[in-house]
Amino acid sequence: MASDGFQALDEKSLVDYLKATPSLAAKLGSHFDKLEIKEVGDGNLNFVYIVTAPSGSIVVKQALPYVRSIGESWPMAKERAYFEATVLQEHGRLCPNHVPDVYHFDRKMCLIGMRYIEPPHIILRKGLIAGMEYPLLADHVSEYMALTLFYTSLLYQTTTDHKSGVAKFCGNVELCRLTEQVVFSDPYKVSEYNHWTTPYLDADAEALREDNMLKLEVAGLKSKFCERAQALLHGDLHTSSFMVAPDSTQVIDSEFGFYGPMGYDIGAFIGNLILAYFSQDGHAEKEGDRKLYKKWILKTIVDTWNLFHTKFTALWDKHKDGSGDAYLPAIYNNPELQLLVKQRYMVDLFHDTLGFGAAKMIRRIVGVAHVEDFESIKEAGKRSECERKALNFAKTLLKERRDFHKINEVVSAIEDLDT
Amino acid sequence: MASDGFQALDEKSLVDYLKATPSLAAKLGSHFDKLEIKEVGDGNLNFVYIVTAPSGSIVVKQALPYVRSIGESWPMAKERAYFEATVLQEHGRLCPNHVPDVYHFDRKMCLIGMRYIEPPHIILRKGLIAGMEYPLLADHVSEYMALTLFYTSLLYQTTTDHKSGVAKFCGNVELCRLTEQVVFSDPYKVSEYNHWTTPYLDADAEALREDNMLKLEVAGLKSKFCERAQALLHGDLHTSSFMVAPDSTQVIDSEFGFYGPMGYDIGAFIGNLILAYFSQDGHAEKEGDRKLYKKWILKTIVDTWNLFHTKFTALWDKHKDGSGDAYLPAIYNNPELQLLVKQRYMVDLFHDTLGFGAAKMIRRIVGVAHVEDFESIKEAGKRSECERKALNFAKTLLKERRDFHKINEVVSAIEDLDT
Repeated sequence: MASDGFQALDEKSLVDYLKATPSLAAKLGSHFDKLEIKEVGDGNLNFVYIVTAPSGSIVVKQALPYVRSIGESWPMAKERAYFEATVLQEHGRLCPNHVPDVYHFDRKMCLIGMRYIEPPHIILRKGLIAGMEYPLLADHVSEYMALTLFYTSLLYQTTTDHKSGVAKFCGNVELCRLTEQVVFSDPYKVSEYNHWTTPYLDADAEALREDNMLKLEVAGLKSKFCERAQALLHGDLHTSSFMVAPDSTQVIDSEFGFYGPMGYDIGAFIGNLILAYFSQDGHAEKEGDRKLYKKWILKTIVDTWNLFHTKFTALWDKHKDGSGDAYLPAIYNNPELQLLVKQRYMVDLFHDTLGFGAAKMIRRIVGVAHVEDFESIKEAGKRSECERKALNFAKTLLKERRDFHKINEVVSAIEDLDT
Repeated sequence: MASDGFQALDEKSLVDYLKATPSLAAKLGSHFDKLEIKEVGDGNLNFVYIVTAPSGSIVVKQALPYVRSIGESWPMAKERAYFEATVLQEHGRLCPNHVPDVYHFDRKMCLIGMRYIEPPHIILRKGLIAGMEYPLLADHVSEYMALTLFYTSLLYQTTTDHKSGVAKFCGNVELCRLTEQVVFSDPYKVSEYNHWTTPYLDADAEALREDNMLKLEVAGLKSKFCERAQALLHGDLHTSSFMVAPDSTQVIDSEFGFYGPMGYDIGAFIGNLILAYFSQDGHAEKEGDRKLYKKWILKTIVDTWNLFHTKFTALWDKHKDGSGDAYLPAIYNNPELQLLVKQRYMVDLFHDTLGFGAAKMIRRIVGVAHVEDFESIKEAGKRSECERKALNFAKTLLKERRDFHKINEVVSAIEDLDT
């Protein structure tokens, strides 16, 4: 064990840890002789164990001091576990339906013991690749986003509480830096970590690096990401950060959480749905057999934004006379003005969402970390065709996002590009 | 003495404090029998003593736990002294020519010992009322703003250093709240603290409270003030925060410092110059005798922005290959793109400056704390005419700031309104 009390666990030492930790032992019915332990961390960063006992299961997640998918050559603050646990707890309080319970957090060990999200839950991205419809997805995700973003913004919080939260999450700077690098920087320059479907997309990747207007817009988004503390974000809300079953949607992996621009979370989800959309032709076993499924993805994109808009503005209405410091009721004191400020706020948020969503799409095609939606398309020529459509759409969206006023217009533009 | 080690000093106990504090005693040559002490705090918040000994003088400033100009009924965190000292030290390191030296800081006593800014220095606002020209003012102020804002922004800082500074200054939340209230809220609602030249401006004040478009724009500015951590601001950079002599400009009173939008500092200075401009007719002893002086004020406004623009972008050019995380050289790698990003950045900053400047003007006419520029115009009818012109210009500027592209256009609009 290191002098700071940290020790990287393996499947054996994990058992000792569980025995010595009453809150976790209780969940397992203290049956340590029949434990089954499976390491399932398939993300980029952490070790994740599913621990099963006859009377119950838990998940134990431990952060190590480097990026797992790269190795010890890319160090990464293990304190991210503290921020992950804190976001899980704060978002869980605001939206218990869609955030798993935290049973135990050990700051020194960078270890979280939490709810095991049981089958038939699977990672949403895998469901999207398999062509599975989730009729409640847009409703659930919009609820999660509306509740967590509204209640951690100045629409609900006092300045005092807000600045206290901002200060705390400034400590998660290493994960913010990682996002800055992989989302806003590397795709637009030569970087050893970048890769793409070569040689098909070589010219596309080069064109990105030479697109002045695109790089101008990316700078504006990066500045918002770094400077604008609007709400407590999940910070990495792509389709692998959701576990879904037909009637349940659970948000996981919040170690990138910080106070940032709301559009970054909403855009991450919508951008990844658009990636899923453009990957479908690569998964079709015969021409057109994903046609209806593609329609469902587009409908989910539309519903997600529109439901989010409805729920978020309803929360605003509900709390317009509350303690939020942004719009004091004595000033924003007539229905016409209340409508005006909401319209302005939601239009700005819509444009942020499209911009960040586009940036998240681009980085998944030419940056360090790709998505299984495309990677699982074995034939490179076909994969690159899907990727190029997504890339071209993302470039347009990023540069021309202010010309869009409704989410339906975005979906129409996707369909136009896809014909 | 309170249990936290704080004790409000008076002129007698101050001497004991000085005797026991070597860094200050040394500045006074340890001649305590011949000390002369004068309390000169004419601001809203603090006690300020000038301590003079035969061999040297110092200023001692102590923050008390309430707003001095209102009384103990308006409590105010005395920890503001820590933030004032920290800004003085950080800005002093970046711009020693225009920031007074700090000799001593006592966090428990909320006490700063600093350079005595000697005659002929006077408060700039008093010089503007007296009709005194300061040929170097625009040059000095633009230098201060360019150096302090550039070097504390992500154009120069790494994300790591920036977030560390942001976190620290989140602690100055009470002073930020005070600004939110007196600048962005009270003028737009009925408030016990508001006052104006009544009955002349009664209808004007009421019209402000019923101007939906104005309140919509104010909300956007307030949101930037609360959420956007762009650089370490002075936070209260009006014309009473400068002490000036013909060849020297010194910036004082930085207790409102925090990481906020740059335009808030630049706008404070320019907005207060515009107030000074509109007050001149009230100080004229005979028709037209302030005509040339008004021209000088307008020239100073133009020069301040233009020199700031030149110096700030020159710093950007100088450090474009440095450690700042905003625009990585590998991405912003051609002169055309570098020009584009600078233009976008500076246009946004210009519009922020005009918006915040206008908000600062409005609050000085209908809010709690007025300015001597107008207050010293004894005849209320005449005073209200000056104030109304300023108020009308500020409203236009706040609502239509995005239509202005050069500072000369702003000055032309001032002249148009003044004829």
